[in-house]
Amino acid sequence: MRESQLLLIPGPTPVPPSVLRAHSRPMINHRGPEFASLQQELVDGLKGVFCTSGDVLILTCSGTGAMETAVVNVLSPGDLVLGMVIGAFGDRFAKIAEVYGARVERMEVEWGKAADPSRVAERLRRDKNKEIKAVVCTHNESSTGVTNPLKEIAQAVREHGALLLVDAVSSLGAIELRTDDWGVDIVASASQKALMNPPGLGLVSVSQRAWEASKKAKMPRFYFDIQQAKSFQEKGQTPWTPALPQMYGLQEALSQFKEVGLEAMWKRHARVAEAARKGVAAMGLKLFADPAYASNTVTAIHNPDGKDSAPLRKLLREKYGLVLAGGQAKLSDKIFRIGHMGFVGETEVLSALACLGMGLKELGFEADTQAALAAAHETLR
Amino acid sequence: MRESQLLLIPGPTPVPPSVLRAHSRPMINHRGPEFASLQQELVDGLKGVFCTSGDVLILTCSGTGAMETAVVNVLSPGDLVLGMVIGAFGDRFAKIAEVYGARVERMEVEWGKAADPSRVAERLRRDKNKEIKAVVCTHNESSTGVTNPLKEIAQAVREHGALLLVDAVSSLGAIELRTDDWGVDIVASASQKALMNPPGLGLVSVSQRAWEASKKAKMPRFYFDIQQAKSFQEKGQTPWTPALPQMYGLQEALSQFKEVGLEAMWKRHARVAEAARKGVAAMGLKLFADPAYASNTVTAIHNPDGKDSAPLRKLLREKYGLVLAGGQAKLSDKIFRIGHMGFVGETEVLSALACLGMGLKELGFEADTQAALAAAHETLR
Repeated sequence: MRESQLLLIPGPTPVPPSVLRAHSRPMINHRGPEFASLQQELVDGLKGVFCTSGDVLILTCSGTGAMETAVVNVLSPGDLVLGMVIGAFGDRFAKIAEVYGARVERMEVEWGKAADPSRVAERLRRDKNKEIKAVVCTHNESSTGVTNPLKEIAQAVREHGALLLVDAVSSLGAIELRTDDWGVDIVASASQKALMNPPGLGLVSVSQRAWEASKKAKMPRFYFDIQQAKSFQEKGQTPWTPALPQMYGLQEALSQFKEVGLEAMWKRHARVAEAARKGVAAMGLKLFADPAYASNTVTAIHNPDGKDSAPLRKLLREKYGLVLAGGQAKLSDKIFRIGHMGFVGETEVLSALACLGMGLKELGFEADTQAALAAAHETLR
Repeated sequence: MRESQLLLIPGPTPVPPSVLRAHSRPMINHRGPEFASLQQELVDGLKGVFCTSGDVLILTCSGTGAMETAVVNVLSPGDLVLGMVIGAFGDRFAKIAEVYGARVERMEVEWGKAADPSRVAERLRRDKNKEIKAVVCTHNESSTGVTNPLKEIAQAVREHGALLLVDAVSSLGAIELRTDDWGVDIVASASQKALMNPPGLGLVSVSQRAWEASKKAKMPRFYFDIQQAKSFQEKGQTPWTPALPQMYGLQEALSQFKEVGLEAMWKRHARVAEAARKGVAAMGLKLFADPAYASNTVTAIHNPDGKDSAPLRKLLREKYGLVLAGGQAKLSDKIFRIGHMGFVGETEVLSALACLGMGLKELGFEADTQAALAAAHETLR
């Protein structure tokens, strides 16, 4: 393995050296005063990133664990759930609810497109008896490179009154998400995406409505019980021994976040993503996602030959140390993906375009690297 | 906070500098070839520590998550479970089974004592209809500083045929545990104890009987589904994004483990623990645990004045940087605890005795530090 890689997958993302160094701090007592003050600082910082004045809980798990936390704490077996499925992660969210006994009605759209808020509103209006207890929705679908119009979806859900549970694993901190203003009840996220940390922490915000629902929710939970998490947080602890290194790292990352500012972070992601998309298109490749809803954290690209991208990705990894992602689930042979979130900036996207162009040519494909770099330059200026 | 602490709690435990440094390695693609070879190396090393040729799965969670994994994958709601409760962690294991719908029959013993294998055997013999599907048992109960006679308990369970699920969070790698030879079906453990790593990874071994049971088990699970974990492990991945830093750290820690040897590790823990117990007793303090079953990873001590140990622990922490643990649950005001596992050796235990003696005297208690150190020296010679 090369000592240094350009890791442009949709997470884990490259981690700033100062955050990596923080991961090497010695252990502390997770039931002592140093931990209490560390956790408080993280929770305060995270509330800013989540745009909430409600609760934010820090769990030791990956993003999928945070999604499971969202589901099992506010629902009961038999509850009807509307699942917005626009890709592999929307499908996963729906599956979690099903596994725990919910009746899930899937609202599917063609992969590459976003959910249609008016269709959501229409379905919820037809639910006169308020049978639908929750809507589960991916904010940014990293499997297809599409961002759902969450603000508009949330508006429809708020008019109905159901709970809105959102997977924001690959959007939090990178793409506008206003938890309180939009009325999102649980936002589930993780440390290893735009928050510039290694994986290991799940993060969830919890609204007052969600707390009320949690009192009646009958799905079984122990490790992911938010009431336990909350009661321990109040005494400066976590119920179970937490992943301390990731918390040290998050302390450092959040201070960098604060310095830049959340809205500036959103703008930076938009600019870098636009450069990636314009560059890729100018190179002669075909973007996969509906341009109106293209993600600012992941760019999905049709495979140049319509077949597997594995040989291309292998060449890029071995020769240039550039690591890109393939497709997931039914897209595994159809697309490849460039992740650009968190610590990934202009330099990395320009490098990726340059290497990608070289790699494509070496494999005998047409690729206008000059045009790609020019288009990216133009955007970034 | 002092820059350097002597962290002698029952986990997290002090982490060797080389393991801490490993935590600062840059991220890699968790679906790429480097990860596959890392995970394979860890699984191979862990099989040695678990004494199993069966499967070992690496999860991103704390020890409690590993315990939940053990329960939900092999049981169904309504199943009768025999729960050995000798302290707070046995109680937790039983609670997890209850939360997921098992009928748990608790076999309680006075805290400070070990479970009695003949009582277990007797109860299981009375279960003519094989109603009891599983026995859940703590190997080392860190809340009381007691180690259960697991080999004998396992023998009774194997004669009956029930599944044996063991919480070895604070024993794995430190106290003799022969998963295959004794016939333990799932051993649940974690990274932050004797394995000399920060918290963040749950570890479970799975026997063939447990795999069979998992096919019929109806408790809901998604994040902790071992069949998913196994099928991804077979292709060199994990189902969900794993805590990479802890895996880097474990690679380093396991190589140190291999160098020393597992049985030598068990012996080292026994020697260091004996020094701690003899030192504490010679100092004039009263040990809490039944001496016949005293733990080699945690020493529990009656509070010197029969009241809260918080002032003593605060003094030790602030003045000497020595961090000890209080009691848990119903023992919170009765005992304090010294953890001595993993990277903790002779030096640390001698230092702890010296500081403890100083601290006690400063608070006006009798404490024969000289005798304590002499007794510990004698043991360690």
